[in-house]
Amino acid sequence: MTERKPFSLSIKVVIRDRVGRCLLLKRSKHSKGNPGKWEFPGGKVETGEDVGTGLLREVTEETGLTILLERVVGAAQSELPTKKVAYLIVEARLESGDVRLSSEHEEYAWVARADLATMDLAPQFLFFAQGYAKGEST
Amino acid sequence: MTERKPFSLSIKVVIRDRVGRCLLLKRSKHSKGNPGKWEFPGGKVETGEDVGTGLLREVTEETGLTILLERVVGAAQSELPTKKVAYLIVEARLESGDVRLSSEHEEYAWVARADLATMDLAPQFLFFAQGYAKGEST
Repeated sequence: MTERKPFSLSIKVVIRDRVGRCLLLKRSKHSKGNPGKWEFPGGKVETGEDVGTGLLREVTEETGLTILLERVVGAAQSELPTKKVAYLIVEARLESGDVRLSSEHEEYAWVARADLATMDLAPQFLFFAQGYAKGEST
Repeated sequence: MTERKPFSLSIKVVIRDRVGRCLLLKRSKHSKGNPGKWEFPGGKVETGEDVGTGLLREVTEETGLTILLERVVGAAQSELPTKKVAYLIVEARLESGDVRLSSEHEEYAWVARADLATMDLAPQFLFFAQGYAKGEST
């Protein structure tokens, strides 16, 4: 973060399936930011409501999945020309559903935790993924 | 975090002074949660507005200080009987002002980064403080 730009907040979710793999989504090649890069589901949420409720709705829209939020596992940040974005990263368990993508993403992958940092991730998530892949978390 | 409780979001700030010390505030002995424990300034912010604006206002109310937000340095979580709280932790530089506490806190201390984890912190910040004291951050 550099200084005096507005900063917005985004919550990203590491969804683990029944065998512990993590869901990554590939951004559309038409995305303005990081086209074709892999990222975690989630996004900007309003805190006027319970944060969890907004986040679950966002994740269902993006993935078609129902999840259970479990714990905070990290943070990240990115710098855009006009603003900074702070990310809180939460781990969740897959409850039900099959992946159904929105137009924001063009592909998905269930990736072993240890392999997360080998994917072509949006750069703001690389440092987190390296630590998380080694079993480190908040 | 256990499951299906509402979760709220709080942003805490590690304010560094000109020689790099970090500001801690001691919670009032009348506080409902963690009375007498040390914590970082900050609190729940609304995301309807730019997050930075709300956070700076909150910090000024709590400390009397004007600060410059610099970068995300970590995350934490706590579990209360009726809800979970997720914390995003941001580092900031002291710009101006002298500490003036609100009724929420009864004492303050400027603490060397390496000594942060030796303070009697609210327990949800201990893991973060241990890593940050060693120079680790997001």
